[in-house]
Amino acid sequence: MKIKSKKIKVALVQQNCSENQENNLAKSIAEIKNAAQTGAQLVILQELHANIYFCQSENTENFDLAETIPGPVTEKLSSVAKEHKIVIVGSVFEKRAAGIYHNTAVVLDSDGSLAGCYRKMHIPDDPGYSEKYYFTPGDNEFKPIKTSVGKLGVMVCWDQWYPEAARCMALNGAEMLIYPTAIGWDPDDDDAEKTRQLNSWRIIQQSHAIANNLPLICCNRTGHEPDGSGQSKGIDFWGHSFITGPQGEILAQAAGKKAQILTSEIDLGRTESVRRIWTFFRDRRIDAYGVLTKRFGK
Amino acid sequence: MKIKSKKIKVALVQQNCSENQENNLAKSIAEIKNAAQTGAQLVILQELHANIYFCQSENTENFDLAETIPGPVTEKLSSVAKEHKIVIVGSVFEKRAAGIYHNTAVVLDSDGSLAGCYRKMHIPDDPGYSEKYYFTPGDNEFKPIKTSVGKLGVMVCWDQWYPEAARCMALNGAEMLIYPTAIGWDPDDDDAEKTRQLNSWRIIQQSHAIANNLPLICCNRTGHEPDGSGQSKGIDFWGHSFITGPQGEILAQAAGKKAQILTSEIDLGRTESVRRIWTFFRDRRIDAYGVLTKRFGK
Repeated sequence: MKIKSKKIKVALVQQNCSENQENNLAKSIAEIKNAAQTGAQLVILQELHANIYFCQSENTENFDLAETIPGPVTEKLSSVAKEHKIVIVGSVFEKRAAGIYHNTAVVLDSDGSLAGCYRKMHIPDDPGYSEKYYFTPGDNEFKPIKTSVGKLGVMVCWDQWYPEAARCMALNGAEMLIYPTAIGWDPDDDDAEKTRQLNSWRIIQQSHAIANNLPLICCNRTGHEPDGSGQSKGIDFWGHSFITGPQGEILAQAAGKKAQILTSEIDLGRTESVRRIWTFFRDRRIDAYGVLTKRFGK
Repeated sequence: MKIKSKKIKVALVQQNCSENQENNLAKSIAEIKNAAQTGAQLVILQELHANIYFCQSENTENFDLAETIPGPVTEKLSSVAKEHKIVIVGSVFEKRAAGIYHNTAVVLDSDGSLAGCYRKMHIPDDPGYSEKYYFTPGDNEFKPIKTSVGKLGVMVCWDQWYPEAARCMALNGAEMLIYPTAIGWDPDDDDAEKTRQLNSWRIIQQSHAIANNLPLICCNRTGHEPDGSGQSKGIDFWGHSFITGPQGEILAQAAGKKAQILTSEIDLGRTESVRRIWTFFRDRRIDAYGVLTKRFGK
């Protein structure tokens, strides 16, 4: 086969966060610079990297953490992107208007321009993850964001559990799937349950790479964060960020408990060759998928 | 949580096949009886278990292998189901009319009645898998088949690569996902590629269990079968049939190269408890999935 390879070096920054926003962002930026120095052309940050995961409790004061886009975080990331000529995917608690806040991924292109943003579409709400309180569901379509390194299928955390979302991104032309995320264990769960949860989280995302023949980058938070309200034992964010190829194969994987940069080379050209062998897109039964746009079949 | 468990013992028969149809079916039936004697209430056979995988080449004479439903295979399975009071999922090369053949799963209930059948919806066509030549795509919806052990989301082989299909089955009320299949390696592929293929096949199916919080049973063929046309080196069917719980966790897994019965207990009650923790069905963005029923986004 004469298929052109299109290799890019990617990196992600898995980190701990504290209540000191300035420190959090300084750490992210230091690591972006380190990644750029190793040749990374695209760097992914974790979900809400400038903050602790404040959604553990419901508190009106937490809305003070939100900012506009563009705003301080976007502007800082923009200047780093421009300085190092790299593409950055960041994550912002966005204030769009009074009473309308989003959990938003921002993409800065290598010239520092804002290539686009994606407002989280699937919003969870579980004990410890009160996201429906803070975030209005996104009203974007699942459209990839065009950058100098390719069309990025950026989604956020809970979106990762939805094969529909990844498929929509792929059908809309994404060349890779990217998930900034913040997921962890309930300290009260036993080890068997923790293992099932971690594995299912990794597998569901690998499956999006497989079903859509696309490379995938998932950047997760690490470290323990207490529940500010004292109602629970907090969350042990499980790290384990990873990068896969277009057959879902793990190319690189981070540890669970430590902050680290993870890098890998991915070849966007492999999507073309894998799609010639695994011809899933040819055979979709679009005449029979009607129930997918319904709540339930009855 | 006060959630009723609903445990059933399931089994699958992973086997080699030869050109002797009678022997193939005799082996399946002997193993079904063995499984029933260990207490299995539901037994799954592999795709086209009565035949070699004749789709390796295109030959008009192979249409002689097809039969009606009901027909000889269905009737034999029916009498075994009734005798042992078990539910059986079999697979038939179905002649529906002159020029209309299907790759069809048949479900026999524990009283011997035909509970329903499912005509394979996604039809592959690759070197060694000339299924588009033999099989008209199914015109059923993705509707589960009601039996005395539950509503079975039965699909066939290539369907297993489509998250859409599994989701449709789940939205239509399936209580478990079941895939009779026949997949193997091209002997010319290197070991790294073989590993990627086997892993991606396992992972994509585990992901359907995870996304839909349903147990899953996948019964695959084993053994080498030559290409009757002599055009290729044949197929090494890779076995590795498996059974998962509703978090995609592997409950039981068969070897690669040998015929065997695989059994496990699954608890249909766990779907209710897992869906209370992993609330994916609550948050689907049915307003934003429109492109799923299109060929491509542009």
